[in-house]
Amino acid sequence: MDNKFYLGIDGGGSKCRAVIASFDRKILGEGLGGPANPMHGFQKTIGSILDATDQALINAGMTPANKRNLIAGIGLAGVNFPALFRQVNQWEHPFHEMYLTTDLDIANIGAHDANEGAVIIVGTGSCGYSSTGGEKAILGGLGFPIGDQASGAWMGLEAIKHSILVLDGFESPSLMSQMLIQKLAVKDALSLSEQIAGRSSREFAKLASLVFKAADQGDQVAKKIVNDGINYIIKMSQVLLNSHPKRLCMIGGLAKFILPRLPKDLACQFVEPILQPEVGALRFAEQRWCVEHKKSAQV
Amino acid sequence: MDNKFYLGIDGGGSKCRAVIASFDRKILGEGLGGPANPMHGFQKTIGSILDATDQALINAGMTPANKRNLIAGIGLAGVNFPALFRQVNQWEHPFHEMYLTTDLDIANIGAHDANEGAVIIVGTGSCGYSSTGGEKAILGGLGFPIGDQASGAWMGLEAIKHSILVLDGFESPSLMSQMLIQKLAVKDALSLSEQIAGRSSREFAKLASLVFKAADQGDQVAKKIVNDGINYIIKMSQVLLNSHPKRLCMIGGLAKFILPRLPKDLACQFVEPILQPEVGALRFAEQRWCVEHKKSAQV
Repeated sequence: MDNKFYLGIDGGGSKCRAVIASFDRKILGEGLGGPANPMHGFQKTIGSILDATDQALINAGMTPANKRNLIAGIGLAGVNFPALFRQVNQWEHPFHEMYLTTDLDIANIGAHDANEGAVIIVGTGSCGYSSTGGEKAILGGLGFPIGDQASGAWMGLEAIKHSILVLDGFESPSLMSQMLIQKLAVKDALSLSEQIAGRSSREFAKLASLVFKAADQGDQVAKKIVNDGINYIIKMSQVLLNSHPKRLCMIGGLAKFILPRLPKDLACQFVEPILQPEVGALRFAEQRWCVEHKKSAQV
Repeated sequence: MDNKFYLGIDGGGSKCRAVIASFDRKILGEGLGGPANPMHGFQKTIGSILDATDQALINAGMTPANKRNLIAGIGLAGVNFPALFRQVNQWEHPFHEMYLTTDLDIANIGAHDANEGAVIIVGTGSCGYSSTGGEKAILGGLGFPIGDQASGAWMGLEAIKHSILVLDGFESPSLMSQMLIQKLAVKDALSLSEQIAGRSSREFAKLASLVFKAADQGDQVAKKIVNDGINYIIKMSQVLLNSHPKRLCMIGGLAKFILPRLPKDLACQFVEPILQPEVGALRFAEQRWCVEHKKSAQV
C-alpha cells in the first residue's frame, strides 16, 4: 500500500489533538486524546498520541493498522527540554515517519500558515515564541510557579495568595478575595489550602476570569495583578518585536482578555492567527517531508 | 515490666527527631530518622518515626521491643489538616500510649517550657502559632508556593522568578541574579528551569542566604524581596501580639536574619526559646499523660 497521509498532533498538559490530511491538504479525520506532556509521564504521552491517532484514523474511514501510512508531525509541550525531546524522539513509533517539535513551534507555524512570525500564547500557561530568519527562540514558558507570569495559573495563584493573607487577618478583605472565598466555598485559610494545595495549574487557571471581573469592578488588588500581568506581556511583546517578526499573533484562552488591555500602539501590531496548532502540525510534517524527500531524490 | 518512659517526636518534611526521657525528665537517648510529613506519604512517616525511635531506644541502652514502654508525644508537620491528623491518629502504633499534635504545637510548648505563648517559625517554611487561654491558633504555614511568605523557600522562589526575567531579557541584570546564575551554574532560562522546576521547597530555601547577602550589598531587587518578607513577619507578629501571648519567640533557620531587621520596638518583644521542639514533644506527652492518668484515677 503506497498511500501516504499527513498526521498532525498537538499535545499538551490536558489533551492531545490529532488530525489527518491528504497530500492535497484535505482534512480527512480528527481525534482527541488525553494529556500528552512527557514531563508528566512518557508512557501516558505515547498512549494519548496513539489514542488520538486511532480516533482520527477511524474518523477518516481507515483503521489503526493504517498508522504505518502516516507521516506524523508532532508538536508536544515539554520537549523544549532537551532530555524529553530525546526520549520522545527515540520512541519506536508505528508511523511511516515522525517529525518532532514543540507545541509552540506548531502553534507558530499554524498562526502564520507555515510562514515565519511570532506568537504569544496566554492560557493556563504563558509563553512567547518566534521564528525569524530560520532562528527559533522561546521566551518564558518555564511553568508554574517559577514562570508563566500573566498566565491563568499565575493569576489564580496571585489571587489565592492574597485571599490567604485576608483570611489570616494580614490584609483587608477585597472584592476579589470575597469572590474567591465564595466561589471555592471555604471558611478559613486552612480549608482554602486544603482545597487548592498541590492541584494542577489548570485548577489555578480557573480563577483567572474572577480576577479580571474583580479588576473591572474596581478592585485595587485585582487591578494590580492584571496590570503586573499586562506589563509582563508588554515586555514579552517588545522582546519579540525586537527580532522584527513578519507577523505577531496572540493565542490562548486569555488573549481575549489581554489584547484589549494593551496600549493601542502595541495592540495594533497583533494580527489574527490563521490556522489552529494541530493544522500547524500538519504543515510542519509537510515541510519536513518535502525537504527530506527532495534531499533523498537529489542523492 | 512496669517501667514507663516518655518519647518525644518532632517530625517534619526533611527529618524526624526522637528523644526518650525518664519520668523525672532525664534525657536517656536520642535518634534521627528521615522525612516525617504525612502529606508526603503516610508509610514513609511511620517508617521514619519508628527508625528514630529505635535509634533513641538503643542509644538509651534499651531495645526496639521497649517501644511498648513508651508514652509518645508526637508533633508532626501536615497534621494541621484534619484528614491527615485522623490518618496518623488511627495508626495501630506499638507504643504504650500515643498523643498526636502538630509540629507547631510542640515547638511552641518547647519554646516556652510548657507554658503558653506564641512562636513565629521561619526556616524552609514560615508559620505563626499561639496558645493563649487554652485557645490554639495557626497563622499562615500553608506551604509552598501558595503561602509561607518570608520563608527561605519563598525567598528562593522570588529570586528564581527575577533571574528568569533577567535571562529572558525582560529585566536588567542585578547583583542578585548574577550571584544566583553563578551559584547554579546555568546559562539561560531553560537550563535554570531544568535545574530547579519541581524541586522541593528545601532546594529553593538554599538560595535564601544569597538574597540576604545581595540585599546587604545594596541590590535593590533583593532589598525588595527582603522588605516584603519582613513586612509579612511584622503583620504576623502584630496578629499574634493581639492575642496578648505571655511570651513570643522566633525560631527556625532564618530567625537570625530576620530578628535584627525588625523595627526595634517590635524586635524587643521577642524572647529566647527555652527548649528544643523535640523536648517540647516530651513535655506534651507528660502533660497529656498526667491529665489522663488523674482522670482515670478519679473514675
